[in-house]
Amino acid sequence: MKIAIFRSLWLSAMVFSCFLPLSAQISGFSPDQAAAQEKLEKQFDAQLKASDLDQWMKQLSLHPHHVGSPWDKANAEFMAAQFKSWGFDTRIDEYQVLFPTPKLRLLEMVGPTKFKAGLTEPPVRGDASSQQTAEMLPPFNCYSIDGDVTGELVFVNYGIPADYEELEKRGIDVKGKIVIAKYYGSWRGIKPKVAAEKGAIGCIIYSDPREDGYFQGDVYPKGAYKNADGVQRGSVLDMPLFPGDPLTPGYGATKDAKRVPVGEAETLTKIPVLPISYEDAQPLLAALEGPVAPSGWRGALPITYHIGPGPARVHLKLEFNWDVKPLYNVVATLKGSVYPDQWVIRGNHHDAWVHGANDPVSGMVAVMEEAKAIGELVKTGWKPKRTLIYCGWDGEEPGLLGSTEWAEDHADELQQKAVAYINTDGNGRGFLGGGGSHTLEKYFDEVSKAVTDPQTGLTVFERRKARMMVDGQTEPKFYELSALGSGSDYTPFIQHLGIASINLGFGGESGGGEYHTGYDSYEHYTRFKDIGFQYGVALAQVAGRLTLRLSEAEVLPFEFQHFSQTVNKYADEVMKLADRLRDETAKENRLITDGFYKAAADPTETFIVPETKAEVPFFNWAPLQNALAELKKSVAAYDEALKAGMPSEKQRDALNLALMKMEQSLTREEGLPRRPWFRHQIYAPGFYTGYGVKTLPGIREAIEERKYDEAQEQILIAGQVLSKFAREVMRAAELLKRA
Amino acid sequence: MKIAIFRSLWLSAMVFSCFLPLSAQISGFSPDQAAAQEKLEKQFDAQLKASDLDQWMKQLSLHPHHVGSPWDKANAEFMAAQFKSWGFDTRIDEYQVLFPTPKLRLLEMVGPTKFKAGLTEPPVRGDASSQQTAEMLPPFNCYSIDGDVTGELVFVNYGIPADYEELEKRGIDVKGKIVIAKYYGSWRGIKPKVAAEKGAIGCIIYSDPREDGYFQGDVYPKGAYKNADGVQRGSVLDMPLFPGDPLTPGYGATKDAKRVPVGEAETLTKIPVLPISYEDAQPLLAALEGPVAPSGWRGALPITYHIGPGPARVHLKLEFNWDVKPLYNVVATLKGSVYPDQWVIRGNHHDAWVHGANDPVSGMVAVMEEAKAIGELVKTGWKPKRTLIYCGWDGEEPGLLGSTEWAEDHADELQQKAVAYINTDGNGRGFLGGGGSHTLEKYFDEVSKAVTDPQTGLTVFERRKARMMVDGQTEPKFYELSALGSGSDYTPFIQHLGIASINLGFGGESGGGEYHTGYDSYEHYTRFKDIGFQYGVALAQVAGRLTLRLSEAEVLPFEFQHFSQTVNKYADEVMKLADRLRDETAKENRLITDGFYKAAADPTETFIVPETKAEVPFFNWAPLQNALAELKKSVAAYDEALKAGMPSEKQRDALNLALMKMEQSLTREEGLPRRPWFRHQIYAPGFYTGYGVKTLPGIREAIEERKYDEAQEQILIAGQVLSKFAREVMRAAELLKRA
Repeated sequence: MKIAIFRSLWLSAMVFSCFLPLSAQISGFSPDQAAAQEKLEKQFDAQLKASDLDQWMKQLSLHPHHVGSPWDKANAEFMAAQFKSWGFDTRIDEYQVLFPTPKLRLLEMVGPTKFKAGLTEPPVRGDASSQQTAEMLPPFNCYSIDGDVTGELVFVNYGIPADYEELEKRGIDVKGKIVIAKYYGSWRGIKPKVAAEKGAIGCIIYSDPREDGYFQGDVYPKGAYKNADGVQRGSVLDMPLFPGDPLTPGYGATKDAKRVPVGEAETLTKIPVLPISYEDAQPLLAALEGPVAPSGWRGALPITYHIGPGPARVHLKLEFNWDVKPLYNVVATLKGSVYPDQWVIRGNHHDAWVHGANDPVSGMVAVMEEAKAIGELVKTGWKPKRTLIYCGWDGEEPGLLGSTEWAEDHADELQQKAVAYINTDGNGRGFLGGGGSHTLEKYFDEVSKAVTDPQTGLTVFERRKARMMVDGQTEPKFYELSALGSGSDYTPFIQHLGIASINLGFGGESGGGEYHTGYDSYEHYTRFKDIGFQYGVALAQVAGRLTLRLSEAEVLPFEFQHFSQTVNKYADEVMKLADRLRDETAKENRLITDGFYKAAADPTETFIVPETKAEVPFFNWAPLQNALAELKKSVAAYDEALKAGMPSEKQRDALNLALMKMEQSLTREEGLPRRPWFRHQIYAPGFYTGYGVKTLPGIREAIEERKYDEAQEQILIAGQVLSKFAREVMRAAELLKRA
Repeated sequence: MKIAIFRSLWLSAMVFSCFLPLSAQISGFSPDQAAAQEKLEKQFDAQLKASDLDQWMKQLSLHPHHVGSPWDKANAEFMAAQFKSWGFDTRIDEYQVLFPTPKLRLLEMVGPTKFKAGLTEPPVRGDASSQQTAEMLPPFNCYSIDGDVTGELVFVNYGIPADYEELEKRGIDVKGKIVIAKYYGSWRGIKPKVAAEKGAIGCIIYSDPREDGYFQGDVYPKGAYKNADGVQRGSVLDMPLFPGDPLTPGYGATKDAKRVPVGEAETLTKIPVLPISYEDAQPLLAALEGPVAPSGWRGALPITYHIGPGPARVHLKLEFNWDVKPLYNVVATLKGSVYPDQWVIRGNHHDAWVHGANDPVSGMVAVMEEAKAIGELVKTGWKPKRTLIYCGWDGEEPGLLGSTEWAEDHADELQQKAVAYINTDGNGRGFLGGGGSHTLEKYFDEVSKAVTDPQTGLTVFERRKARMMVDGQTEPKFYELSALGSGSDYTPFIQHLGIASINLGFGGESGGGEYHTGYDSYEHYTRFKDIGFQYGVALAQVAGRLTLRLSEAEVLPFEFQHFSQTVNKYADEVMKLADRLRDETAKENRLITDGFYKAAADPTETFIVPETKAEVPFFNWAPLQNALAELKKSVAAYDEALKAGMPSEKQRDALNLALMKMEQSLTREEGLPRRPWFRHQIYAPGFYTGYGVKTLPGIREAIEERKYDEAQEQILIAGQVLSKFAREVMRAAELLKRA
């Protein structure tokens, strides 16, 4: 699912000039243990073979392997056998989930001219995988409801709330109409959600060639980008409410679990939704009249983009098989020799929409290679101090099903034992992208400076830094993790259970349009993505180090300066957001009340002057600011206490237990407003972005949605949470002072 | 030619918060005279009839009327007869100019596939004008040299210097190649000029549908935008060197004038150039390979835009009839009753590339209507105090020929007698755009607040203000004139002779793609531009007031606060430009020398690290700053002296003579570096923009072109010129103190 990561990565970078360059140490290790660790990591590297990745990708992507397909199960069994052969205690954990598949898909224009959408992805030359059309799920959006609707068509750009404001200014209402939205601009599930909120009766999503088709580069099979037939499949589950099986909200979808009736499932769409190709979209869009779409809405089709409504009228009919299907999570454990009840979890999903060579197999094979290498180390007599759990999740594509059900099913044990969760979800060529808990930022930074970029011989940190500097960003002194929104299997761990998490992958030099289409094949991947699997090996080197350092550290490498600075930055952002919204609202209200909008409008076109909005009040930020001041003090005390040198074994044991659970103090049992499943108070996917993160989400979204009382409450809550966290840090500092 | 004005207008707005709102006075008029003037203007307005404009547009655009065509001459004679009938003393001033027309145009792709460009504009349904193909000049770029070249094709975006930097980074050289550039991004003549500087052997210019085709709106005849066949004709004379007849540089192209041989004419292109449609461009662009063009280069054709070079190879063959043709300037004079030797000049061109309903006829008919209305006033016994000269210029399209030859021919008399020149060049629906000498800004502002917008009933100032505010600009207190670059007939007046000038027109709600095509017809104009000619009447109201207030003012309404503030802003800009260039150069050099460029580049693509550039020195700005301080003092003294009340008649006569020539003290006989024809030291068209203005051009272009010694010299020169101007203002102030 993962596509969001490289879109936001380069934008989210930030710099704290107050940090000194790091020395060559490894956080959490005493000098002699650090030397041993370096040696271990070299031995680990020596086991990594690109040819393994190649061979496994070929195997895993040989057939379509979506949830419920024979190859999905076969892949799980194949992987389980491999993990077993490397000495891992391996299970396949099964869950039973709702997984609708298409029974009937019909999209036709019924007037003013007739057109029937093809809705198919034909095979292309030179790609044997694309021949297996009988095994593929045809293009569809998973968890769309059934429907049979006919109505005038309206083009709504990306279909996000801001787009509807533009429609309103033009006097266009989508009530009773069918909308057509472009992919991108938000997570796809937002589009039918907002459309339904606005009264639309159906939603079509298409891939404009501007986003990932010929506008970006040559199309498949000549190049990597989306050809006229390619369709992005994908989930439209209301994941910002909660991910996972829609019938078992908040608990594991075990065989005998109590299930919500399908008709009452909250996270299904409210209207039918269907994704189409640009070949199918063009006749529909070309048949629209009404106002010309704003410049930023227009794509790369050779037409004038009009908004409508109509005169194009379309008929959309969708029926699904509402089946419950089994999920096969591969869970491979290597028991810790010293701390068996401290778990380092490493995962990637294995299910795909079609062949999924890139998404997810390119990441899954790195996970396997890491496990294989560790298995080799074990054969030499080495044992991990902490327990390592390697996971291949099923059902990520429909809605993070495998990871969510597993995390919900094992919630208590995970909150007791998990040290951290390290996620990947596909891989490509280029630059290291990483997001995650900022208590792990320093540790991630150190790893990024310990692995060599295969193309340049620089460290992967240095190569990314070069890209950032050429792109005009400030010189980064350390690797700044982005904050995690959603879109992959870290979500249940960090956002539901409060387990510190990392998500990573390489990319930026391997663009394409194959994502979730029938063309994400081994043939495509090996021509356009990571030729020779050199970045697959680099990913294993980075994720392997991340895993092994957590496993072997004397003191777990959680650190709080980076976190404190980062949250201060978020606080600064939301304060500025309130100020900006206040100024903008005042300005906008003046444009309305003083008649400027009316005077500026073209009288030959419809223009509805918007309503004025309530003024934005000034907020009491003190609760948040006081908590941040408290945090600063605690962090200083913790760092001061650590300066005394490596703590005693007894201190370390107590400290590590405290550190493991630190992230959980950033959660609240009550969760976020209107979505209690999301418990983390610092990071959440946006309710109206889906993938895109909202930091300090309670405050930020309340301001954005102009819920001013709620914003004030959320400032108080964020202050309480951060104060609780500060006390936990202080408690850790005090642990170090005790004998 | 005029298209640039509305592109830059809204961007160039600026605000001086120190000015108070203006009272309802009319600058230069005592209270009772102001009342009389208001009455006169109302009488003037009462004469204006939209039906005249309609009828004259139909007449003037009935046939193609380019230079040398029968209808060009017929139109001149028709207009002359009209002016005569309104009581004007009317001449047709003839000049003989080089005007090449196409003899042979051939463009074909010779490999890897064959394609022959059509190079024609077929008639379209519902547009009778477009049937007259036999009378039209086919699409061509005027003053391209003859040529017969074959070479690999390279796509160069807009073909401006910055684009070639991108090519160099990709290791692409255009030497010996033929470039294809998009229209827009600069004046078209810059494209072959830069291409030739870089060693290209031919240049093709095409209209991408993104700029004015289907991307913008429905295409003709359904809508106003450019259809697949439309081709923008236009001059590619090296006008930034000097406009006008290439064979008579700097002097009038009279019958017996000495002429430079065609082979030695400096302003012809160095390579053959041909404009084509997007229908003809698409196969050529689609046949390119090599790197994908940067995102900002890509247009709206349904292809992947590659740069090349090749494998497409094209053959371009052009031959022209190198004829000398007559120009017919219509010059209609109404002698001043009090100051016959003070001339207020009002003009618009009458020649067109084809039918030219919009460009230039929509402006020309407003000029005629103004003259007709004034003729009516004269019939009532009123007489203008100063001499009014109404001009219909010929040969503007090929290179401001008519106005330039006339201005050069009458240079001495004009510098003695001209008060100001007021130009239009077509008109549309929407917002008043105005540029010109900032000594006339206050006067222009007053007029903009005295004319009613026909669509809203607000003043044209208020309507434009509303648009600016909705667009997020700061609230304007007065009408800020943009600075004049080039692209219409004001250039010889202001930039060569130093005669204060204004250029104006309405637009912003009448977009289209007809510019310089065979579809700029009466049919097109009356459907899409200014329906009912209501903005034609508004233009006559604004330009009529501008003319009449100059004619009747007791003290000519030149004012220096606005000018002083504006030049201070320009000085601030060039100082910041130097600082920015210094920072950017240091940053860029670091990216080069520290290896960041190399490290960031994709190793699978060619990337040539640029050479480092010399550091930007600090300049001595004192000469400019001291002159600006002197100017401030003079302006204060002048304003103080005027506060005493209306000067005596004797004072006024002396003062007006001084004011008329004030702008000339902003010129230098030596002109700008390497282009002595351009004498104005505050405003000039950019050497590498063509239309786009460069203010304080000597300094600004020296910095931009990294000629640091020259920049320092030009700071000194600008200081001297502004100091001279300040002394003239002080002299005017002193005139007022004398009895």
